[in-house]
Amino acid sequence: MAVNLKQLAAELQLSTSTVSRALHDSHEISEETKKRVRALAEKLGYQPNPYASSLRKHRSKTIALVIPEIDNNFFTLAINGIEDIAQTKGYHVLIYLTHEDLQKEIAISTHLKSGRVDGILMSVTSETSNIDHLESLYKTGIPLVFFDRVCESIPTAKISTNDYESGYNATKHLFEAGCKRIAYLQISETLSISKKRLQGYKDAVSEFEGFTEEMIVTCSNSDELNVETIKKLMQHDNPPDGIFASIEKLAVSCYYACNFLNIVISDQLKIISFSNLSTAPLLAPSLSTITQPAFEMGKKAAEILFDIIELKPNDDFEKNIILKSTLVGRKSTATKKPDVSPANSY
Amino acid sequence: MAVNLKQLAAELQLSTSTVSRALHDSHEISEETKKRVRALAEKLGYQPNPYASSLRKHRSKTIALVIPEIDNNFFTLAINGIEDIAQTKGYHVLIYLTHEDLQKEIAISTHLKSGRVDGILMSVTSETSNIDHLESLYKTGIPLVFFDRVCESIPTAKISTNDYESGYNATKHLFEAGCKRIAYLQISETLSISKKRLQGYKDAVSEFEGFTEEMIVTCSNSDELNVETIKKLMQHDNPPDGIFASIEKLAVSCYYACNFLNIVISDQLKIISFSNLSTAPLLAPSLSTITQPAFEMGKKAAEILFDIIELKPNDDFEKNIILKSTLVGRKSTATKKPDVSPANSY
Repeated sequence: MAVNLKQLAAELQLSTSTVSRALHDSHEISEETKKRVRALAEKLGYQPNPYASSLRKHRSKTIALVIPEIDNNFFTLAINGIEDIAQTKGYHVLIYLTHEDLQKEIAISTHLKSGRVDGILMSVTSETSNIDHLESLYKTGIPLVFFDRVCESIPTAKISTNDYESGYNATKHLFEAGCKRIAYLQISETLSISKKRLQGYKDAVSEFEGFTEEMIVTCSNSDELNVETIKKLMQHDNPPDGIFASIEKLAVSCYYACNFLNIVISDQLKIISFSNLSTAPLLAPSLSTITQPAFEMGKKAAEILFDIIELKPNDDFEKNIILKSTLVGRKSTATKKPDVSPANSY
Repeated sequence: MAVNLKQLAAELQLSTSTVSRALHDSHEISEETKKRVRALAEKLGYQPNPYASSLRKHRSKTIALVIPEIDNNFFTLAINGIEDIAQTKGYHVLIYLTHEDLQKEIAISTHLKSGRVDGILMSVTSETSNIDHLESLYKTGIPLVFFDRVCESIPTAKISTNDYESGYNATKHLFEAGCKRIAYLQISETLSISKKRLQGYKDAVSEFEGFTEEMIVTCSNSDELNVETIKKLMQHDNPPDGIFASIEKLAVSCYYACNFLNIVISDQLKIISFSNLSTAPLLAPSLSTITQPAFEMGKKAAEILFDIIELKPNDDFEKNIILKSTLVGRKSTATKKPDVSPANSY
């Protein structure tokens, strides 16, 4: 075990507050003392308490938000929830985009380790399987909270939705609407939330007698490529009659593919998707969705982050907080043929 | 005229580089010298060369992007264009949201004046009429480029679209589709781009004989309130038969209002909107749009910003760059009654 601040102070015959201020490069401490403290801290492998850095007096009054993409209504709504809280605290929110690129996430993590922000909210990329950079970031002691795309093994607060249950319910919804071959569309095989959604799909498929074949399609980050992938899927000899899109943009690509192929959504193919699209009820046909409480998730993540920054006692610091999603059935999974079939009439 | 660095140096009997470093708070310069330099700079009203600060050696390798909102596809696409360039330069992009709040824009501007970034890209709020904070920010010398919602009177590069022409063409498109009473929906009366779009609308209305009455409706930032405003507009004794929405979210609110009132879009009311909605072709009915080259605008703005940061000679530093928008006619402004009228069938 590495030493703590108290042991370090005892060894140096200094007060813990002097050692702490020395480690935080306080102007009140002489350069000589700082050097002594740093040397021993390094020698004994001292790791700062994860939340101790928030004791710094010179706060930047900014928090960083690290997210994979911006053209996704889940994140835009979550951002509004985060800003809602940050605003009341007088904090600025800096948004960093990783564009689903692990290398970019690593670069941003390194950049943030310099301590330019008082706390970090993060949703990891679809490529994030190696998490050395996140462990290293966590160890710097900058308060860190994950939301939605959480990193399970880092012992900090994580806010997500009931992904397994939602995946199960969405698949069951399609079976109940009459589907017999349901495809699951995903963009990642490694994300914790993707695995849970997929497991929900698998379990639902295995439960419905006679309909046990899994169809798992892994798409990319390119909308154009995804439309082509879905077109190919639908042109198979034995195409699916139901699609469960695990993220919003895959549902939009499904609509484009169906329009192109003159496939009547709801009649020939039922679609349900995780989505916070504001236009979901306005599409032709309206899209059935699993709607995440995006605004509330952002708000909750920010609240916990500020509790950590402000050193408030909070049981949730190392807990998983689950906020439930809502299944909203619309025309795209309607059981009877709709009066109109606008999807292929344009 | 205020003095320049050279005159300041001559007066102080110091080299220009010493004066420059003193003004940039360099560690190489004594406190005493810094005080002398600052005192004279203040006395003589010295304004740093807008681009001189980019000479600093200790670059943060970050640029700030200040935008009014994130739940708008124009900005999400523009961000992708900006990141495309920033990535190649090895820069991080920090996104600051003003949420259309002038006070927040002022606070962010003050925050950025500390010089934590190497350059700033900005699209101002719908409330920004007083621009003291922007003038002050510009005078600090941090490279600054405006895009879309530009601030006309700041002498730096501005990237926008052909707002006047697009407003004129959208209105003309509605007249040609048979509309006789066209309402113009806006959220701001002060923004430069709003004024241009509105003028285009006004000029088109005045040109079409017999149809000269203007209907200008100023909406808010609340989608809920906007749906109510549009419902009231449509319940008038003499409602419009065409709507030109100057921003995307107002078109979405129109669709919600029409669905609620069972108004058949295209048949009873034609709608066209400035929009980069990816679902515009998928709506019921598909939405006619004025599509801004959002990605290209973001890219161009970032390119010019980096030219300034890197002190490259560039004629565009004080120019208005106009990238043209495209009018895409779809079902929402179709001249004949569509085969199906899905808008009120849900």
